[in-house]
Amino acid sequence: MAKNTNIRISLPAVCFVWQIAMIILFGVFVRYNEESDTRWIEHRRRKNISTNLENDFYYRYPSFQDVHVMIFVGFGFLMTFLKRYSFGGVGFNFLIAAFGIQWALLMQGWFHYLDDDGKIKIGVENLINADFCVAGCLIAYGACLGKVSPVQLMVLTLFGVTLFAVEEYIILELLHAKDPGGSMVIHTFGAYYGLTISWVLYRPMLSQSKHLQGSVYHSDVFAMIGTLFLWMYWPSFNSAIADHGDGQHRAVINTYLALAASVLTTFAISSISQKHGKLDMVHIQNATLAGGVAMGTASEFMITPYGSLIVGFCSSIISTFGYIFLTPFMEKTLKIQDTCGIHNLHAMPGVIGGIVGAITAASANKIKGKETIEAVANRTANIQGGYQAAGLFVAIAFGLVGGALVGGILKLPIWGDPADANCFDDEVYWEVPEDEDENMLSSHPNMNHARGMPDA
Amino acid sequence: MAKNTNIRISLPAVCFVWQIAMIILFGVFVRYNEESDTRWIEHRRRKNISTNLENDFYYRYPSFQDVHVMIFVGFGFLMTFLKRYSFGGVGFNFLIAAFGIQWALLMQGWFHYLDDDGKIKIGVENLINADFCVAGCLIAYGACLGKVSPVQLMVLTLFGVTLFAVEEYIILELLHAKDPGGSMVIHTFGAYYGLTISWVLYRPMLSQSKHLQGSVYHSDVFAMIGTLFLWMYWPSFNSAIADHGDGQHRAVINTYLALAASVLTTFAISSISQKHGKLDMVHIQNATLAGGVAMGTASEFMITPYGSLIVGFCSSIISTFGYIFLTPFMEKTLKIQDTCGIHNLHAMPGVIGGIVGAITAASANKIKGKETIEAVANRTANIQGGYQAAGLFVAIAFGLVGGALVGGILKLPIWGDPADANCFDDEVYWEVPEDEDENMLSSHPNMNHARGMPDA
Amino acid sequence: MAKNTNIRISLPAVCFVWQIAMIILFGVFVRYNEESDTRWIEHRRRKNISTNLENDFYYRYPSFQDVHVMIFVGFGFLMTFLKRYSFGGVGFNFLIAAFGIQWALLMQGWFHYLDDDGKIKIGVENLINADFCVAGCLIAYGACLGKVSPVQLMVLTLFGVTLFAVEEYIILELLHAKDPGGSMVIHTFGAYYGLTISWVLYRPMLSQSKHLQGSVYHSDVFAMIGTLFLWMYWPSFNSAIADHGDGQHRAVINTYLALAASVLTTFAISSISQKHGKLDMVHIQNATLAGGVAMGTASEFMITPYGSLIVGFCSSIISTFGYIFLTPFMEKTLKIQDTCGIHNLHAMPGVIGGIVGAITAASANKIKGKETIEAVANRTANIQGGYQAAGLFVAIAFGLVGGALVGGILKLPIWGDPADANCFDDEVYWEVPEDEDENMLSSHPNMNHARGMPDA
Repeated sequence: MAKNTNIRISLPAVCFVWQIAMIILFGVFVRYNEESDTRWIEHRRRKNISTNLENDFYYRYPSFQDVHVMIFVGFGFLMTFLKRYSFGGVGFNFLIAAFGIQWALLMQGWFHYLDDDGKIKIGVENLINADFCVAGCLIAYGACLGKVSPVQLMVLTLFGVTLFAVEEYIILELLHAKDPGGSMVIHTFGAYYGLTISWVLYRPMLSQSKHLQGSVYHSDVFAMIGTLFLWMYWPSFNSAIADHGDGQHRAVINTYLALAASVLTTFAISSISQKHGKLDMVHIQNATLAGGVAMGTASEFMITPYGSLIVGFCSSIISTFGYIFLTPFMEKTLKIQDTCGIHNLHAMPGVIGGIVGAITAASANKIKGKETIEAVANRTANIQGGYQAAGLFVAIAFGLVGGALVGGILKLPIWGDPADANCFDDEVYWEVPEDEDENMLSSHPNMNHARGMPDA
Repeated sequence: MAKNTNIRISLPAVCFVWQIAMIILFGVFVRYNEESDTRWIEHRRRKNISTNLENDFYYRYPSFQDVHVMIFVGFGFLMTFLKRYSFGGVGFNFLIAAFGIQWALLMQGWFHYLDDDGKIKIGVENLINADFCVAGCLIAYGACLGKVSPVQLMVLTLFGVTLFAVEEYIILELLHAKDPGGSMVIHTFGAYYGLTISWVLYRPMLSQSKHLQGSVYHSDVFAMIGTLFLWMYWPSFNSAIADHGDGQHRAVINTYLALAASVLTTFAISSISQKHGKLDMVHIQNATLAGGVAMGTASEFMITPYGSLIVGFCSSIISTFGYIFLTPFMEKTLKIQDTCGIHNLHAMPGVIGGIVGAITAASANKIKGKETIEAVANRTANIQGGYQAAGLFVAIAFGLVGGALVGGILKLPIWGDPADANCFDDEVYWEVPEDEDENMLSSHPNMNHARGMPDA
Repeated sequence: MAKNTNIRISLPAVCFVWQIAMIILFGVFVRYNEESDTRWIEHRRRKNISTNLENDFYYRYPSFQDVHVMIFVGFGFLMTFLKRYSFGGVGFNFLIAAFGIQWALLMQGWFHYLDDDGKIKIGVENLINADFCVAGCLIAYGACLGKVSPVQLMVLTLFGVTLFAVEEYIILELLHAKDPGGSMVIHTFGAYYGLTISWVLYRPMLSQSKHLQGSVYHSDVFAMIGTLFLWMYWPSFNSAIADHGDGQHRAVINTYLALAASVLTTFAISSISQKHGKLDMVHIQNATLAGGVAMGTASEFMITPYGSLIVGFCSSIISTFGYIFLTPFMEKTLKIQDTCGIHNLHAMPGVIGGIVGAITAASANKIKGKETIEAVANRTANIQGGYQAAGLFVAIAFGLVGGALVGGILKLPIWGDPADANCFDDEVYWEVPEDEDENMLSSHPNMNHARGMPDA
C-alpha cells in the first residue's frame, strides 16, 4: 500500500521548532560552569590550584573526543551495512544525535547540574554525558533502522532523552548505583526502548522489501569502520566519567581486555555455526562489541584483569548465539523486527553488565575493591549489590513502558513513514545519485572517448 | 581540445626541488624549542616547574592530533564525493598538505617564532599552526577540485602558504585581532583565494565532463567520513591554540553547540527546498559544518551557550541556501566554477564568523567577557571590535588579490592541466584499476570456477 | 588442486582453547599496577604526588588511543585494497590483533613487568606495548595476505608474539639499545618474519588467482583510510613510550617531519616511473609511510628537524623503488610472494631506521643529544652506537630464523589454507553477500516498482 512519505513540511517544521526551542531554553537556563568561564582564574585562586592542567578539561577532553567519534562515526557507520540505506543509516544518526545532545544538556542539567541561581552550568563532563544520553536513542534507532521516517526519529529522540534523564536520575542519584559505562542506564534502557517501539510498529508485510534487507560487499566494509571505531574507543566510553586517576586507568584496562576476549569468542561461535565454518560479517560487526557493553557497570570496579576477560568471553558467546537463534525467533514469534539486532548487542550484554556490576559490588570487600564501592554511599557491599540490581530493573522498566508509550505515538499516521515495500530504501527520503551501473552503461562511450584524448 | 597532461617531468621536478629546498632551509633555520629540546630540564629548573605535565605538549597534543585528522582525513575524504575523482580528491589533498605544513613551519616561523639567534624554534604549537595554515590551501583546492593538475596545486600551495603567513601576521600581530579558529584568517582567506583562482581559470566548456561531475552512492558515503571527522573534531580545531584552561574549555563548548544547531537547520532547509522533501547529500556533507566555521573567531569569547546555538543556526541556513541558489548563479553569471561549493561552506560562514567576532568583542564589557578581550592589547571593547572588523577586510583582500595573481600564474600553459572533457577524471593523473564492472564481466567465469572448488 | 578449507572445527577450537588459556594465565599472573589499582591513593601519598594528573594514564592515554587506531583501523584498512579480500583483510587483522594483545601482555609481562610477588602488574604502558608487539605480527600478515587461513594466522601470531618478546628483551634490556618507535624491534623483525614465512609457503601456481590480486576503484579508496590513519597517528606511535616531557615532544616533531618529506618523494618517484607520469595508488598507500618506520629508533634523539626530513626523504625513495623493481624481482627470483610489499614498507625502512639510530647515537655528543643517549647505560656515544647496530642484527636474525621455523609449522597440511586458485578470495572463509551487480540485475524490477510507489 502506498503511503505519503512527503516530509517537506513536517521535517523542516520539527527541526526549526525544536532548534528554536533549544535556543530559547539555553538562553534561559544554560551558562558556562566555573571551569569554562573566565571566572576560572578566581576559582583557581580560591581553591589554591597551581596549574591550568587541574581544569577538568585536561582530564576528560581526550576521552570526550573518543566518545564523540563513537556516537557519530561508530554508531553512524555501523548502520551503513544495508545495501541501499547507507545515507539513512549515517545521515539520520547524525541528525538525531545532533538534536539529542542539545536536549540532553538541558534534561540532564535540570536533574544534575542546576546551580543555586537556577542556571545549568556546563563543562566538558556535561558534553560527555550528553553524548552518553544520545547513545541510548541511537541504540533504539538500530531496531527501527530503515522502517521509520526522520520525523519519527526526532520524536523517538525527544522522548528517549527525556526518559533517559529521569531513569538516570533514579538509578544514579536516588539508588546511588554505579554505572560509569552505562550497561544499565544506556544499553539496557536504550535496547528495550527500541525493541518495544519496534514491536508496537510491527510490519507484517515487511518481506516485501526483503531484497533490500541485506548487505553488499562494500556496505559491509563501510560498517566495519563503525565497528572498529566503537571497539577501539570503548575503553574511553567506559572511563570517560570514571574517577580521576586510578578509576579512569582501571576502567580502560578492564574494557580493553573484555573487548579482546569478545573478538575471539565471536569468531569461534560464528565459524562453528555455519556450514564449512564460514564467518558471518553480521556477527563480526556486532558481537565483538558485547564485551564493551557488558563491562559498562563494573568498569571501574576491582574486577581484576581475568575477570574482565571472562565477562568479554561470556557476553560475546551469548550475543553471537542471539544473532543466530534469537533474532529470527523474535521476528517470527514475538513480532519484534530488530534490524540491527540490538537485542543481541545491547539488551543481553547490557543486562549481563548490570548483573556483573551487582555481583562485583556485592562481593567487593572480598576482592579489595572495598574503598571504591563503599565510598559511594556508606553502604556495605551486599547492600550496594542490591541497589545495583534494583537499578537494572529500573532501566528495563523505563525501556519497556517508555517504548510502549512512544511506540503508540509513533503509530499515528502523520509521521510520513514508508510503506512496507519501501523500507530499507534511501530513495524515500534522499536524492539518490544515479546508479553506478546505469552510469557506467550510459557514460562509457563518452568516457572512453575522453580517456583516449589526453595523449593524442 | 586535447591537452598535454603528461606530468612525468614536472611533478617529480617540483616535488624534488621543493623538498630539497625544505631540507636546506630547515637546516639553516629550524631547531627544537625549549620544550622539545633536552634543555627542557634546565628550562623546568629555571622556571621552577615541578612536573613534566607543564610541558605545552600535554596541553595541546590531543587537540593537535584531532586537527591533523581533520586536515588529512576530514578534508581528504570530503573531496572523494565525485564518482571518478576520489583518488585525486584524497591523494592530492595528501600531497599538498604534506608539502604545505613544511613550508608553513618556515613562513610562520619567520614571522612569529624567530629566536634571538636567528633560528625558528618549533614545538607542538607550531605543528598545529602549520596544519591551520595548510587548511587555507585545502579550502582553495575545493574550488578547483578536478580541474587542475597536481603541479598547479603545488604552486597554489606554495603561494597560498606564503600569503597566509603574511596575512596572519598582519591580522594577529599588527592588528591584534583574535581569531583562534581562523574564521577570517583561514576560512575567509582560503575561500576567496580559491574562488578567485577558479574565476581566473574559468572553463567555458566544462559541461563536456558533466557526466563525471556528480557522485555515486558509495562515493557519497565515503564523503561522509570526511564530513563526520571534520564535524566531530571541529571543537579541537577552534580550541587547539586557545588559552590554557578556561579558554580551551570554553572554545570547545561553543563550537560543539554551534555545530549541533547547524545539523538541524541544514536538514530543515535541505528538505524544504526539494520536491517531496527529499534530502540532498551535498547539503548534509557540507552545510552541517558551517557552525564550526562561523564559530572560529569568537570561539574563546564569552559568547554564551545560546549565542553559539544562534551562530550555528544562522550560518547553516545561509550556507544551505548558498548551495541551492548561489552556486548555480555564480557559475552562470559570475563565471566562478566552485566544485565543492566552498563559497557556501567557507566564504560566507567565515565572513559571518568575522562579524560575530567583531560584535562580540565590541560588546564584551557588557557580557562579562571583559577580561578576555581587554587582555589582548589594553584596548576598550569597542576599539577591539573595530580591529576585528579590519582583520576581516584584510583576509578578504589577501584572498582576492592573491588569488588573482596566483590564478594568472596558473593560467600559463605549462602545468599539465586537463582538457575540459577530461576534468573530474582520475584517469588523467592516476593508474586506475580496471573497472569493477568490466572485471566482473571478464573474470566471472574464472571466479565461479574458483569458488566452486574449495569443497569439491 | 582442491583443498579442504573447512575450518568449522579448527578455528573455533583454536579460538576457544587459546582464550581459555588466556583467562587461566591472567588469573594466575596478571594484576593491576599501582597506578590502576585503588592503592594509587597510598602510592600518591607515599610518593608525595599532589595531583591525579601525575598518574601515567594522563601522560600516555591519548597516544595509546592513537596507536590503537593504527593497529585496528590503520593496518586493517590498509589491507582492504584487494578487490575481493577486504573482509579477510580487515577481519583477520581484527582477530589476530585481539588475540595477540592478550598474549603480548603475558609474554612482555614475564620479561619486563614481573613484580616481587610473581605477578605481572599492568597499566596503560603495558597496553601500548602489547599493541606494539602485535604490530610485528600484522606486518608479517601483510606478506601472507590472501594466501593463508585464519587458523594459520593464529599460529603465526602465537609464535610471532613469543619471538617478539624474547627479541625485544635482548635488544632493549640486555643490549640497552633504544628503539621507542620500533624500527628494529617491530618493523625489521616483523617484516623478515613474514617474508621468511611467505618464502617457506611459496606457491608456484599462484597466478591461477591473478584475476583477484588487484584492486578495484573503491577498494583503493578504502585502503586510503588505513594509510591516512597510520600516517597521521605515527607521531603518537613513535612517542607513545618515549620519556615524559621533552622526549615525547621531540619524538612527535621528528616523526611529523619525516612523514611529510616521505609524501613528496613518494609522489615524485611514483610519477617518474610510469608512462605519462601517472601515479600508482600502491605507492601512495604505502611508501608515504616509510618515514615513520625509519624514524622509529631515532625518534627521541636530538636528530634535528632537518635530519628528520632527510630520513623521510631517503627512506621513501628506497621504498617506492622497492615497489617498482624489488617486489617483482623477489617474486620471480627469490620465490618470495609479498602481497602487501612489506619488504618495501617495513623491512628496508626498518633497517634504515636501525642504521640511522646507530649513527645518531654514535655521534650524539657532537650534536648535543649527549644527555639523552648517555643516560641509557653510562656508555660513551660510540659504544652505544655499536650496541644499536647489534640490536638491528638481533632483530633480523630473529625474523629469519623464527620465520623459517614457523613457516615449517604452517606448511603442515592441517591448517585449512586455500588452494592456489582460491587465494585472495573472501568466498573461502566468509559468507559473502550476493554481488552488487547480480543484485542489481535481479532486483531492479522490484526496486523500480518500489521506488515508483511512494508518491503514487
